[in-house]
Order: sequence, then structure tokens, then C-alpha cells
Amino acid sequence: MNDQRFTQQMEFLAEIDKLKQVIRQTSLVDRSRQENTAEHSWHIAVMALVFSEYSNTKNVDLQKVLKMLLIHDLVEIYAGDTFVYDDFDKDEKVQREREAALKIFGLLPEDQAREFRDIWEEFEEEKTPEATYSKAIDAFQPVMQGYENKGWSWQTHGIGKSQILKQKESMNQGSTKLWDYTKELMDKAEEQGYLGDNE
Amino acid sequence: MNDQRFTQQMEFLAEIDKLKQVIRQTSLVDRSRQENTAEHSWHIAVMALVFSEYSNTKNVDLQKVLKMLLIHDLVEIYAGDTFVYDDFDKDEKVQREREAALKIFGLLPEDQAREFRDIWEEFEEEKTPEATYSKAIDAFQPVMQGYENKGWSWQTHGIGKSQILKQKESMNQGSTKLWDYTKELMDKAEEQGYLGDNE
Repeated sequence: MNDQRFTQQMEFLAEIDKLKQVIRQTSLVDRSRQENTAEHSWHIAVMALVFSEYSNTKNVDLQKVLKMLLIHDLVEIYAGDTFVYDDFDKDEKVQREREAALKIFGLLPEDQAREFRDIWEEFEEEKTPEATYSKAIDAFQPVMQGYENKGWSWQTHGIGKSQILKQKESMNQGSTKLWDYTKELMDKAEEQGYLGDNE
Repeated sequence: MNDQRFTQQMEFLAEIDKLKQVIRQTSLVDRSRQENTAEHSWHIAVMALVFSEYSNTKNVDLQKVLKMLLIHDLVEIYAGDTFVYDDFDKDEKVQREREAALKIFGLLPEDQAREFRDIWEEFEEEKTPEATYSKAIDAFQPVMQGYENKGWSWQTHGIGKSQILKQKESMNQGSTKLWDYTKELMDKAEEQGYLGDNE
């Protein structure tokens, strides 16, 4: 089978195995270890299925949402995971991730490379209903996970309620339901002593 | 927010975090550790996107395929991962996984519980185009992963070519392309000395 197209697809699928080694600043619910970005990507994809009724736009294209959530973090293989509460240069991050997107999706045959880059760009631009809903899910999962693991990350990094709410507010664009719930959950997290004190 | 439906959905989404701790008999490409089922589920979902052109049935419903692949292994949270090359009681496995499906999907509101159970059943019955394609992808990923990690699992468990081909042959129902490639890859794996010798 001398098939350049298939060979390129196989190379891409083997390379993305590396996402399983990108470590995030969130722990599993039982705090036994930090989670990696492949696991996170799976978790948000299932979450998007379960919560689709809470998208602000009704009848969002769920197939596109799943594609976005499954591939949007692949850039981290080369660009690394950026902890949202860190102080970082936003333009530099955008540039770094754009280069990573060209590199990882560039392993695919040209038509698929273009399709995946377009989906990734659409997610990042956060303008379409699918992108705002996907962004809301991507932002909500660490909130849920953080509450369930009793604030492992918030305590480890000294992150308080106002920082979290400021960081998560754009969730409201994609899902008012999830944003309202996030505010409630942060009150509960504060009562439970799960938050950091670096306000 | 006193919302029984949302509470059930949240409980399900927190419970499925446990899939990240179900360890499979496959290692990462660099052999640094075994992969878990959440990572595997993510990997096959992306694979299904990339390989959709190789489904024997054209224009397979990709949204349904993604749903199947993302949720079909959730039963392993309670039923554990069954290593396909082990000697096991198939009826007992089916029974165990059916009970697990009732338990895990039963955390969801009734309409979603039914939807997820139906998708899981459709996958297991392996009759529709979406199910046969999804099964082919689920069977192919460990083949690719096994070749890329130089036969970690095949050597660890002493698994040879005829066992692998016998186990993987049903892949041909969903994707003749992937099945043909699997046969080629096993010849290459044999040449490279990646296989076990327990024939």
C-alpha cells in the first residue's frame, strides 16, 4: 500500500499521542494526580453532549462542537498548556499557538489540514454559536473539576473567587446557564474553604 | 438553582472522571506508561474524524460515530477493561457490562439515560454502519499504537500475529481499508521483531 495520503494521516494520528503527556493544572477528582490534555479533551466532549440544551443558541451543530473540542488543544503538543491564571503575554501565546497549529495540522493531507485549521480558528475567534458554546464548555470543565477535587488547583496556586469569576465570565456568551451555575458554585467553594487567598 | 435535572447531569459528569483511572494493556508511543481509557476514547474519536473516508459505508453519520466512541467505554468504570487476548467468559462479560451501562447511564436524567444506553447498545450489536465503522476504529487504534510503541503489549503478553489477525478480522465489516492495512502492518511488525511468540 503505497499511499501518501494514508501515510500522512497515520503520522498525524501517531504524533497526537503526545497530547497524553501535556499536563494541566487540574487534578483528578480524587487528587491522585494532575490530568493531561487528552483526558480533558475527552471529558469536555462528553460534557458538550450532556449539556447541549444549555447552549444559548438552540440547535447548535453538535458535530462541529465535538470536532472543535476534540482538536482545539492539539496545539499544546508544541505550544504547551498555558495556565489561565498565570501572567502571560497574550499576543505571544496567540503567535505560538498559531505556529503550533500550522505544524500539527500540517501533518495531514492538505484538505484535512485546512479543515482542521479552519475549525481551530473558528474556536479561537469565539464568534459562531458553536465556538461560544465550545468555549463555555472548555471553561466550565475545570470549574466543575476544581469543585469536585476540593479546590486542588485553586489552593495550590492561591487563586481566589474574583480571579476565577473574571477569568470565566465570557462563559456567559455561550451558556448563561453554566455561567450562573459557576457563580453559585464559587460561593459554595468559598464556604467550603476550597479557594486560595491570593486576592 | 434547585434543579434536579442539572444535578443529575453534574453527578454523571463528575463520576465519569473515573475513566481516567482505568488502565489499558497498551502503552503510549514512547512506552513511558500504559494509557488509560479516557485517553483511548479521545484518540479514537479523533481517528474517526480523520479516517471517515475509509468507512465501508459512505456518508456515515459522524455525529453518532463520535457519540458512540466517546461513551462506549464508560462501562469500564464499573466493569473494568477486558484485555481482548485474555481467555474470558464472553456471556459473563456482556452481562457485567450491561449492568455497568445501566448504572453509569442511569445517573443521567431519564431521556438522556435512554439515549446513551441506546447508543451503547447499537455499538455493541455492531449492525448499523455507524456501529461497524466505530468498532473498526476502536479495534484499529491499539494496532497502530502497538506498532508505534514497538510492540510493548504484544511482547509483554506474548501475543503473536495469528492471534492479532483473528482478533481484528471483524474490522473488515466497518473498514476494508483499515483491515487490509492491519494485515500489512502485522507483516512489518513481525519483520521488526515487535510480536510475541505465544502462537
